[in-house]
Amino acid sequence: MSEYPIDQRNKVKRVPKRGHYDQETVYAVLDASFLCHVGFVADDQPFVIPTAFGRKDNKIYLHGAATSRMMVHGGAGFPICVTVTMVDGIVLARSAFHHSMNYRSAVVFGKASVVSGEEKEAALKIISDQILPGRWEESRLPNAKELKATTVLEMTIEQGSAKIRTGPPKDDAADYQLPIWAGVIPMETKYMAPVPDPELTEGIKLAASAKDLS
Amino acid sequence: MSEYPIDQRNKVKRVPKRGHYDQETVYAVLDASFLCHVGFVADDQPFVIPTAFGRKDNKIYLHGAATSRMMVHGGAGFPICVTVTMVDGIVLARSAFHHSMNYRSAVVFGKASVVSGEEKEAALKIISDQILPGRWEESRLPNAKELKATTVLEMTIEQGSAKIRTGPPKDDAADYQLPIWAGVIPMETKYMAPVPDPELTEGIKLAASAKDLS
Repeated sequence: MSEYPIDQRNKVKRVPKRGHYDQETVYAVLDASFLCHVGFVADDQPFVIPTAFGRKDNKIYLHGAATSRMMVHGGAGFPICVTVTMVDGIVLARSAFHHSMNYRSAVVFGKASVVSGEEKEAALKIISDQILPGRWEESRLPNAKELKATTVLEMTIEQGSAKIRTGPPKDDAADYQLPIWAGVIPMETKYMAPVPDPELTEGIKLAASAKDLS
Repeated sequence: MSEYPIDQRNKVKRVPKRGHYDQETVYAVLDASFLCHVGFVADDQPFVIPTAFGRKDNKIYLHGAATSRMMVHGGAGFPICVTVTMVDGIVLARSAFHHSMNYRSAVVFGKASVVSGEEKEAALKIISDQILPGRWEESRLPNAKELKATTVLEMTIEQGSAKIRTGPPKDDAADYQLPIWAGVIPMETKYMAPVPDPELTEGIKLAASAKDLS
């Protein structure tokens, strides 16, 4: 896989060694979540909206109500930004200044277009697979009315970068002698025990897709 | 506390009953995290950057390297958007169409300005307190050089909204008879056991701020 071209738009300026431009690293960060934050502009006002997404190859898929502003603006081909972030821990340094987080983030740029025809259902499956692999096949699939009510956008990633911090704090040399605890408080997002729908018909076993999540 | 004025910018259009405009609810969502995604525009390109933040009263505080684009654009008074999202679970409906997430999100709008003088250190404490209460008092506080290298922005929230989904899936009436498991897979972000810095001086006990995190 190749690297995204680097310019002012995607260059990691602050702590450059944390920046990554190869598709393999950017994809790994994107694929670690199903939640992204989409940025778009309407009347000079930036909007940042959380939403589910899917990635396949060098494309990001988004879906929403056909009437949603994000779908309308995105589908009109204006530039958008899609960001995915995982916080892996709080980094406690001795100095307030060197406090940090361990994190993985990916910021990708492109222009979206509306997906139609047979590709639309395939794109919805990509989003579903990103959330919970195998669930699409278990579900009652969308009918014509539902497909019509949903807009699906496809964005080819023109450019992107990942930024990753790991490891212990870094303090100024003189501060290591201070009697202050320093280290990392790791954070993890976990799946808890599935809660059946109170309306669930008796005797239906837990979905295979929801087993063994950790 | 009062409600934010509602117009096209902050109105929750999709599933309006999930929208909240009272400051109490918006603040509660903001205060549930220390990570936000900041949206700003440069040369018609939207950017969405993850960063730590703090809230006090009706203000959001952000900090960063004085050279960072987000700090420079934000500090110039252009409109920005600050979004905080917690995913609380994956909602598995019988139909693919009604799959959803349980979540809490807050989207707030305003224009930022640069904080200087004595207020700058107070603002940095607000951000630190949002990440880990009590840590500021334990740390070696910023010196003049560190304060100079850091830009702090303050944004009064002009307008905002929260959007919250809780509870089980909602399916179309006809779908409840399908032999498909439905329910919620809750998700929680947890703090794990603190990892001391390998360079930690022997005999220094775990910071009080890092005890009893759950």
